Amino acid sequence: MPAPAAHPAPAARFQPQDPGFAARCRDSFARQKAMVLIGGTIAELQPGYCEVVLPFRDDLTQQKGFVHGGIIGMIADSACGYAAFSLMPADCSLVTVEYKINILAPTVGERLVARGEVMRPGRTLTVARAEVYAEKDGRSVHCASMQQTLMMLAGRSDRPD
Amino acid sequence: MPAPAAHPAPAARFQPQDPGFAARCRDSFARQKAMVLIGGTIAELQPGYCEVVLPFRDDLTQQKGFVHGGIIGMIADSACGYAAFSLMPADCSLVTVEYKINILAPTVGERLVARGEVMRPGRTLTVARAEVYAEKDGRSVHCASMQQTLMMLAGRSDRPD
Amino acid sequence: MPAPAAHPAPAARFQPQDPGFAARCRDSFARQKAMVLIGGTIAELQPGYCEVVLPFRDDLTQQKGFVHGGIIGMIADSACGYAAFSLMPADCSLVTVEYKINILAPTVGERLVARGEVMRPGRTLTVARAEVYAEKDGRSVHCASMQQTLMMLAGRSDRPD
Amino acid sequence: MPAPAAHPAPAARFQPQDPGFAARCRDSFARQKAMVLIGGTIAELQPGYCEVVLPFRDDLTQQKGFVHGGIIGMIADSACGYAAFSLMPADCSLVTVEYKINILAPTVGERLVARGEVMRPGRTLTVARAEVYAEKDGRSVHCASMQQTLMMLAGRSDRPD
Repeated sequence: MPAPAAHPAPAARFQPQDPGFAARCRDSFARQKAMVLIGGTIAELQPGYCEVVLPFRDDLTQQKGFVHGGIIGMIADSACGYAAFSLMPADCSLVTVEYKINILAPTVGERLVARGEVMRPGRTLTVARAEVYAEKDGRSVHCASMQQTLMMLAGRSDRPD
Repeated sequence: MPAPAAHPAPAARFQPQDPGFAARCRDSFARQKAMVLIGGTIAELQPGYCEVVLPFRDDLTQQKGFVHGGIIGMIADSACGYAAFSLMPADCSLVTVEYKINILAPTVGERLVARGEVMRPGRTLTVARAEVYAEKDGRSVHCASMQQTLMMLAGRSDRPD
Repeated sequence: MPAPAAHPAPAARFQPQDPGFAARCRDSFARQKAMVLIGGTIAELQPGYCEVVLPFRDDLTQQKGFVHGGIIGMIADSACGYAAFSLMPADCSLVTVEYKINILAPTVGERLVARGEVMRPGRTLTVARAEVYAEKDGRSVHCASMQQTLMMLAGRSDRPD
Repeated sequence: MPAPAAHPAPAARFQPQDPGFAARCRDSFARQKAMVLIGGTIAELQPGYCEVVLPFRDDLTQQKGFVHGGIIGMIADSACGYAAFSLMPADCSLVTVEYKINILAPTVGERLVARGEVMRPGRTLTVARAEVYAEKDGRSVHCASMQQTLMMLAGRSDRPD
């Protein structure tokens, strides 16, 4: 599904180390069973950029009927993570060190879109950001912003030991 | 289920405004469908303190088989939120403004326990913290720390409009 | 002093409530004695945007000779704060609720520039971001990113009580 | 200067790798010219714990006469940093990756005390926290909380290159 015109994917700023980055990221994402549980998918993937889409479901809500803040954090976390992972070498693993998220607006609509982008790639640490938008009736509302730090573990498998 | 002896609930520091805080919090939590989806429950609730327990499930994991960082954020978010909500008047709603979480260790084990505690209650804003522990084979590993800001909306219902 | 071409001030996105916002912000900033101490000044001010410039000084450094991380936080804090304050009504005060900052690179150079911008203005809470750049030999290095929450106190003076 | 009884230094939880940690930390702190500028000193140092004291000065204030939020961040940053540095080997350098701070109360009084403590020491990354208190007329008010991530650079000097 194409990104809404209002928020196009950023122009390519990064050169991937691993030419097979796209398949590697999509394969890793597909092994995130928690993403399967909530219904999140990768809608767009470029070097240093990842967009995760989450269709609204009633079982993702908190007590007032909005999407749970932790669910918003989940898709923003994964969008940042795969934006960063796309720039890594083939033979490594990536862990989330920490993230901070501001919830900007109650989250309602047909679907959420989390756009993760690398701000600062690094040999050990990478800093990324994600913006989350709620799409409803053709409009897009900015509902959350994340700033995240990730650490690469060189030579470690991205699969269960 | 009692808290493990290693991490007892803190001594009561706060006086609730609403004597019915416990029923109000548990009722609100029960309406968080996202918590039902992942299997989180309130194990302990006191004024300014809330403990959320999450049994390990394979469908909560990320690509390496650890519990997804966003899932850890979800239970820490709810533990902080209900710690704060317990100190509020009966007739209000509470929203998460922002949170920051450090993932301290890979999360494996039989269950996770998120202990949320109010640091600074306020008329408008409340600051809370949560520690998340993974319990395995009778041991408890500190796996995440959250610092969170919440805002009370006076006179607003905690239910869908 | 004009902003370097590489990082122009953003296009105006906001309409100020107070037509006298610029004088009000500059007057308030001038009363920040801590800014006078370190030598920070406002280089650019627009509705929702504020740029603080800090010439390098040896007495602002940490043990390795880089600008102290807390000093970087100070100018980013003020850049966000006055970006937000520019959108407020004349008769209010603004307080920092919290901020998170990533230090992206060691900070050396002739001067630092912190560019603060409002992401989400609100009646009570405003969310802003700042990017800090170190300028050296005509080059600009991105050295820190801040995400901040501020709270407006309506009808409260911006001066000492 | 002894810690006020209300907030004693925590019981020793950590074993230092470097028996000369105290002299090494105090020497490094003394080279932070920015700390000399604002008047901060180490009042207490133990393995994994550091207390920085800052006497109130009029030139450290913001526009309302409270201590500038960035100054509070500075002493909390240094308290966390030296808490972490105390646990490091003699031959290394330490950098701040990021921090998040909540300002809990306006900061007035005779002096500020920032108590930094390591939560999770690590080979590469260490997570620390600081609480900042304002002392006035024999009372202590909790005015800020920081959560911070630091990275050790093995074999790198803590002095200017």
